[in-house]
Amino acid sequence: MKGKGIVSLSGGMDSTTVLAQAVANGLLDFQGVGFTYGSKHNKYENEAAQRVAAKYEIPFRVIDLTGVMSGFRSNLLISGAEIPEGHYEAESMKLTVVPGRNLIFMAIVAGIAESEGAEAVLLGVHQGDHAIYPDCRSEFIESARQTISLSTDGRVRIEAPFLHTDKGGILEWGLQHDVPYELTRTCYKEQELACGKCGACQERLEAFRVRGCQDPIRYASVI
Amino acid sequence: MKGKGIVSLSGGMDSTTVLAQAVANGLLDFQGVGFTYGSKHNKYENEAAQRVAAKYEIPFRVIDLTGVMSGFRSNLLISGAEIPEGHYEAESMKLTVVPGRNLIFMAIVAGIAESEGAEAVLLGVHQGDHAIYPDCRSEFIESARQTISLSTDGRVRIEAPFLHTDKGGILEWGLQHDVPYELTRTCYKEQELACGKCGACQERLEAFRVRGCQDPIRYASVI
Repeated sequence: MKGKGIVSLSGGMDSTTVLAQAVANGLLDFQGVGFTYGSKHNKYENEAAQRVAAKYEIPFRVIDLTGVMSGFRSNLLISGAEIPEGHYEAESMKLTVVPGRNLIFMAIVAGIAESEGAEAVLLGVHQGDHAIYPDCRSEFIESARQTISLSTDGRVRIEAPFLHTDKGGILEWGLQHDVPYELTRTCYKEQELACGKCGACQERLEAFRVRGCQDPIRYASVI
Repeated sequence: MKGKGIVSLSGGMDSTTVLAQAVANGLLDFQGVGFTYGSKHNKYENEAAQRVAAKYEIPFRVIDLTGVMSGFRSNLLISGAEIPEGHYEAESMKLTVVPGRNLIFMAIVAGIAESEGAEAVLLGVHQGDHAIYPDCRSEFIESARQTISLSTDGRVRIEAPFLHTDKGGILEWGLQHDVPYELTRTCYKEQELACGKCGACQERLEAFRVRGCQDPIRYASVI
């Protein structure tokens, strides 16, 4: 893959690893796009994405969707109730789904790509998300991929290299390739230090634990 | 169809007729959503959409995408070159395509619908647009419909009742049902009065001409 690409960069492990892999594969002309949409962790995740982009020396911009998504209902948003704690599999974590978020992000990034002559849009979506989030499941991504191909007359393709991999598999690739996980941020909560308790933190910690590695970021508390 | 719905209301003939048909079918709980995205005719089309919404006594809101789409390339946008004149079929009218616009709009309206418990999103897309705009073709709409169904776990459905009808067919239904076309606006240009020369105006005028009717709106000039 030698063309021009855009990575949807959230500052978490998954999209950072996708970027690292694109760089390892020799992609030459690349940029990152992040979003701010009223989530509790927006400020922190975009700071992380900025650090990652700086490390890989790619341009990074943040698209502001705060107004657009101000009426959306989710506990992930500042307008919603508390972020639940516990594993992703728990029923309560469904409260962190943001309706339509991924399709909105993909549609906008594809529009930017088409406007700027980039042919690839890279996403960090992975298998571990699927049970809770309908807009992370492979059927959704495949359908969105087809929709965006039709929308752009085949000029933009969606790539989700970890779609059939879980977070452990992503981490495995990343550890072998020195991905700078110390720069990333995964936590859903509105605080500087990762909480260690929300579903996102727990999945991350579990992935490091299984591989017998220490997560290089600091946590407010770890259960 | 008796549930809660949202119509993507541009203030043109097509989405106005879709709204009129939904009202005629007895849809009870309805709202309109429009967008401002830096196009030359945004101000005028949203004023028209507001007039139509007022006529049908439904709430109407405008979502601001000016910042989000500020880097998008199209002659339809204030940032682009002149709006070409002539028929839609002309190669030059391709310059008015806005990359990814319809998918961005659909994804956002579907997100609002899911957040607010509305099950239907109604679109005025029709057959006459297809040749020029990839994101109006039936293959695209069918694919986007499937993508949004997957994204929302089946909670939101896209309805495009005129997908296989041309503008003449839409007008025929509208004239039989007293749709207030005098309130609508179709022109792409940045001026109060419709120009009568751009592809959008020409298609509209042609539809009225074929039916032997007078278009109730005023034009700056008609060729």
